[in-house]
Amino acid sequence: MISDIILRNEQKIVFLVLDGVGDIPDKRFSYKTPLEAAKKPNIDKLSQEYGVLGRIIPVEIGVTPGSGPGHLSLFGYDPLQYDIGRGVLEALGLDIELEEGDLAVRANFCTIKDGIVTDRRAGRLKTEETERICAQLAKNIDRINNTKVIIVPGKSHRFVVIFRGGNLSDKLADGDPHKDGMPYVYPKPKVKEAEYTSNLVNMFLEKALKVITSEEVANGILLRGFSMKPKLPLFPDKYKMQAAAIATFPMYRGISRILGMKVIGNPKTYGEAISLLKENYNDFQFFFIHIKETDIAGEDGNFEAKIRVIEEVDHLVSEIWDLAPDVVVITGDHSTPCLIKGHSWHPVPLLVLNRKGETDGLSFHEKNSLMGSIGTIYSKHLMNLVLAMSAKLDKFGA
Amino acid sequence: MISDIILRNEQKIVFLVLDGVGDIPDKRFSYKTPLEAAKKPNIDKLSQEYGVLGRIIPVEIGVTPGSGPGHLSLFGYDPLQYDIGRGVLEALGLDIELEEGDLAVRANFCTIKDGIVTDRRAGRLKTEETERICAQLAKNIDRINNTKVIIVPGKSHRFVVIFRGGNLSDKLADGDPHKDGMPYVYPKPKVKEAEYTSNLVNMFLEKALKVITSEEVANGILLRGFSMKPKLPLFPDKYKMQAAAIATFPMYRGISRILGMKVIGNPKTYGEAISLLKENYNDFQFFFIHIKETDIAGEDGNFEAKIRVIEEVDHLVSEIWDLAPDVVVITGDHSTPCLIKGHSWHPVPLLVLNRKGETDGLSFHEKNSLMGSIGTIYSKHLMNLVLAMSAKLDKFGA
Repeated sequence: MISDIILRNEQKIVFLVLDGVGDIPDKRFSYKTPLEAAKKPNIDKLSQEYGVLGRIIPVEIGVTPGSGPGHLSLFGYDPLQYDIGRGVLEALGLDIELEEGDLAVRANFCTIKDGIVTDRRAGRLKTEETERICAQLAKNIDRINNTKVIIVPGKSHRFVVIFRGGNLSDKLADGDPHKDGMPYVYPKPKVKEAEYTSNLVNMFLEKALKVITSEEVANGILLRGFSMKPKLPLFPDKYKMQAAAIATFPMYRGISRILGMKVIGNPKTYGEAISLLKENYNDFQFFFIHIKETDIAGEDGNFEAKIRVIEEVDHLVSEIWDLAPDVVVITGDHSTPCLIKGHSWHPVPLLVLNRKGETDGLSFHEKNSLMGSIGTIYSKHLMNLVLAMSAKLDKFGA
Repeated sequence: MISDIILRNEQKIVFLVLDGVGDIPDKRFSYKTPLEAAKKPNIDKLSQEYGVLGRIIPVEIGVTPGSGPGHLSLFGYDPLQYDIGRGVLEALGLDIELEEGDLAVRANFCTIKDGIVTDRRAGRLKTEETERICAQLAKNIDRINNTKVIIVPGKSHRFVVIFRGGNLSDKLADGDPHKDGMPYVYPKPKVKEAEYTSNLVNMFLEKALKVITSEEVANGILLRGFSMKPKLPLFPDKYKMQAAAIATFPMYRGISRILGMKVIGNPKTYGEAISLLKENYNDFQFFFIHIKETDIAGEDGNFEAKIRVIEEVDHLVSEIWDLAPDVVVITGDHSTPCLIKGHSWHPVPLLVLNRKGETDGLSFHEKNSLMGSIGTIYSKHLMNLVLAMSAKLDKFGA
């Protein structure tokens, strides 16, 4: 229905996504949340003058989302309908550009003794070791049949394998006993069409195991989360907007690419991110700026650090606003409460600044968001609201 | 989706269901609700320290639920998908244990003259009379073909008939003209497969009518709400928890049994209910405690009585909390406002106490519930939230 009434115009929208920004009141900090405790004069002044508030539910009540579903829903994709597989997400996190038809797999080095996986993480192998062994594998294995094999080391015992070319399937079960002390497993096809791919992956594994046979600890490889780039309508087509993504962390650049956004630059600081925004401001109607550090502080349970990140971001907001975008959204892909030290199910506070001057007159934090005029909505509906506020949605019906 | 991410753990959840607790502000009592007017220091202290508030909608906006849908939705069953038939509910209310394949029917004694039902309730026959005639019927009719017939008297002119055994169908139309002054009707099959059952029920009716032919008033029988135990996923399987139900009224014990909860004891007082909870605390992860008296007070329109029940319950809550459950939910299956003297469609106030210390800092009543961080949600989503708060839900997506 929405797709039928989308209008193309030049109004500009900026999504400033503070990863995991949502939090819960903390007894140790007078029952405040980091957003509430932070000194953020720019955000609060803009919020009071131009802001409407609300809360968004990423997936469903009580459901804690990963980064994939969190971002898909922010951009108006139903996270229950669209899914970014684990292998793909891991590849994106290593900044690997995936091509159509690539089969991506998360890999672990493990320890095998007499056919038994004795340690699924090979003693949490050091990153340097993983890099060394991956280089050896890459030197020895270039392709299997018509398929190119790309091996990219990650952190600790983790790496990613991409199988490129040759009409592959991702319908393979994990090659992983999922528990120490169990026999080694080769990935099996889940459906008949995946038999060829399964054989190919197993040929790779046999070759690879020979290459690492003399390793003392990392003499095995587990493969999990076989997946391909999801088929989904691209953001610029879906919304009739050119979209740019500015993100420091590879995974978010990757998700943006999958959605058809143009990833611009590779900023190392918030300042660089804002410079990129300014330089490219005329070429796009939609901008996604991703800030990772709020999530990291939440995962660490570091209330003060989360406050500091929010206070730093506060300076960016007036710079963004001064570019005169029509709508600026400040929110998160999910909550990461310091009390929980991880992603959570809690609704995420939402601030929508708009040039028309519609306002709830409130400063921005979780408690005020609860009173905001947007109410509590599903994240997947946020884009509708933003399109409406930038005059990109026609009237429905006569 | 939820079923894929449920984790098994030992965290404990207590649902304290105050039947019909929700109310509306009453002019005669300074526009307070019973929850607001009641002195409940334990609940309010716990709420302020450990409680998050919200409201639940049992079925749909504006829809007044019966006890069946009210409880199904509380336990995470979509009340529009699952249905406990009227015959079954009436049987549960008489503490009849239903077996697989039992056909349960609500029955009325009525008065028939020259084939016309002149009084559908047989002058609201006295309970003792109903008991006497039911005993006579039971003495004369034991089985029809291979089917055992069980006749259980209820209140006033009402009783229940259970047909047990013989591959029966519940696809029968009511044997009830639904109005006085209309011709008597025999139950007809709604589908072809129900023809055998229809014949069997009518053979029963013919025999029964002969037995009571000399009765002056109760010389007819109307049969309504043919139904069987619904097929639904059992609570312990659905949520990977062992569940116990503690309830004084038969209907709620019956609903619990249908959901696969273990009904423990038959408490006569609140004190006995709490003792049962304590005795069985180690053997279950989920406890459902049902308090009926709030609903009765509401149905009577007795504001003071409803306050008294809430004040009595207040003592239980600290005893429950002292057992150290991880999550305690205090809410109702629906509202029964004193002003309405019956079940209503009003959202039900919800308090979720949690050991993590997440809190809205509010005391518990309808007006505060409206400001609670949970917001207004459907009852069927409450279990998701409770699972999340007891660490029983894994992250969704990577």
